[in-house]
Amino acid sequence: MSDSEFGLIQRYFTSQLIHNPVNRLGIGDDCALLSIPVGYELAVTTDTMVEGVHFFAGTDPYQLGHKLLAVNLSDLAAMGAKPVSVTLALTLPEVDGLWLAAFSKGLLSLAKQFSVDLIGGDTTSGPLTLTIQALGIVPEKRAMCRSAAKVGDLIFVTGLLGEAGLGLKIENGYECCSPEKALKRFHLPMPRVKEGLAIINYANACIDLSDGIASDLKHILDKSNVGAMLRWDKMPLSKEVNEYIEMTGDWGLPLSMGDDYELCFTISPGKVDLIDIACTQVGVVEAEAGLRIHRFGVTEELKVKGFEHFS
Amino acid sequence: MSDSEFGLIQRYFTSQLIHNPVNRLGIGDDCALLSIPVGYELAVTTDTMVEGVHFFAGTDPYQLGHKLLAVNLSDLAAMGAKPVSVTLALTLPEVDGLWLAAFSKGLLSLAKQFSVDLIGGDTTSGPLTLTIQALGIVPEKRAMCRSAAKVGDLIFVTGLLGEAGLGLKIENGYECCSPEKALKRFHLPMPRVKEGLAIINYANACIDLSDGIASDLKHILDKSNVGAMLRWDKMPLSKEVNEYIEMTGDWGLPLSMGDDYELCFTISPGKVDLIDIACTQVGVVEAEAGLRIHRFGVTEELKVKGFEHFS
Repeated sequence: MSDSEFGLIQRYFTSQLIHNPVNRLGIGDDCALLSIPVGYELAVTTDTMVEGVHFFAGTDPYQLGHKLLAVNLSDLAAMGAKPVSVTLALTLPEVDGLWLAAFSKGLLSLAKQFSVDLIGGDTTSGPLTLTIQALGIVPEKRAMCRSAAKVGDLIFVTGLLGEAGLGLKIENGYECCSPEKALKRFHLPMPRVKEGLAIINYANACIDLSDGIASDLKHILDKSNVGAMLRWDKMPLSKEVNEYIEMTGDWGLPLSMGDDYELCFTISPGKVDLIDIACTQVGVVEAEAGLRIHRFGVTEELKVKGFEHFS
Repeated sequence: MSDSEFGLIQRYFTSQLIHNPVNRLGIGDDCALLSIPVGYELAVTTDTMVEGVHFFAGTDPYQLGHKLLAVNLSDLAAMGAKPVSVTLALTLPEVDGLWLAAFSKGLLSLAKQFSVDLIGGDTTSGPLTLTIQALGIVPEKRAMCRSAAKVGDLIFVTGLLGEAGLGLKIENGYECCSPEKALKRFHLPMPRVKEGLAIINYANACIDLSDGIASDLKHILDKSNVGAMLRWDKMPLSKEVNEYIEMTGDWGLPLSMGDDYELCFTISPGKVDLIDIACTQVGVVEAEAGLRIHRFGVTEELKVKGFEHFS
């Protein structure tokens, strides 16, 4: 990294750092150094956001910084890991102080809430591309994997489904009486870190809902060699999403639209009394392969798919 | 990640994986999981390469894959860390099977040489941008930092300086009698991992030469609050680089051109007998701030700078 790049990073990204004791050495050397507590494993994930693909040109940089970190922390939450640090690869078409100030504020405010340090990065010139790699710690051999769902498990989700999808519809012109909540969910998702840390004590499989439950739950089912039945009447939907469905008939929205970043997990029926977070049972794991939904007395195969690049 | 993206990654990036025992869970879940051996710290670094900035459109994808990994492993080497795993954030304008096959081969061949696993990633569509985050392990509190140089330390470098810079000159039209070695050094640098693991036992400060010794050694000097004197007559230069300097008068090339990825380290004079790798003493750490070079009986301030983005 050049002196001017280093100055840039220093100015906008190191000012608000808290210090998680896991991070022994942060920005400013060839590598950062982490001291992982004995009895813990390291969880690693990475997510990229590209202008024109994941967000429109001109998107509020505060929201971008927030969302880029949130989607990465959401992956850690899905394994039951406690986030500790991130690196940031920032490719920028130009050095714009106002943009950087807002972007770093969005990112670092959320980082502070979860005691996450920015421990390193690389800033380069080029088309706007944002990559975070997030690191977390999880008690040895306790991480929740996609492959751990068992036949008979109950399927739960945190929060409400389809709110972020509704936010995107609103951005694209759908008129909603009270759009604020849905827009906030779309632009400023909150990763379910606390919930991930809680359910690790009783859940079997877990995934975060980035592409919609129809697509994401399918990953659990495929990895676990099982199927599932969802119940439409159990889906946790907001008043606004229900109104949207009434108006448009598009009942697939809460199942197939992404960006909710809620957790979807499975749990043995004998352990439901242990649940200590707000969540809703939406279905059950079955031996028969495939994902089905029971809706108004009819069972149908759920084939909706999430967003695909290159499709 | 969508099914088609996942298929893409699966096809090209999981076929040649070796398995480093540190990596307990690789690609295919929300996170990868690493089990760091007791007594070791984790070293973390990230580097991005952007088309049109770090490489020309049409660059051989095998070389890109190799170099992207090499520059990251070089940062681990500079701390004395043993590389164990990487994640890859790949932004591609299109899905080109031939390109991906060659890129992944370049990356995974080098990964195999160092027992490094590709443990995760994110593939998105957009302008060609390549980011790796590399993870390594280093004995607790033993990593070589930039801040550890002491007045009186001797300054050493591995290998030869300026070869990659000469390679770039050749790419840009300079005619050299035997260009092969310099071009290979430019396109397919070899990270000094083995050397980094060896010198951790006796070196004080260390850095890898990505931007040229004038720029990179300055980072050590600044962080350690010291200065240094280099000796021109000690610089390890190839026959081809010497010829280039004779022809052009551009003696700054081996000092200011990047991409050599050699290690530059400092060591107490009392420990030089411990050195067990091939390297050359090129200078000495002094109390007086700044970087100087003694050349043909004259001492001059060395102010050459490495490549700067946004300049």
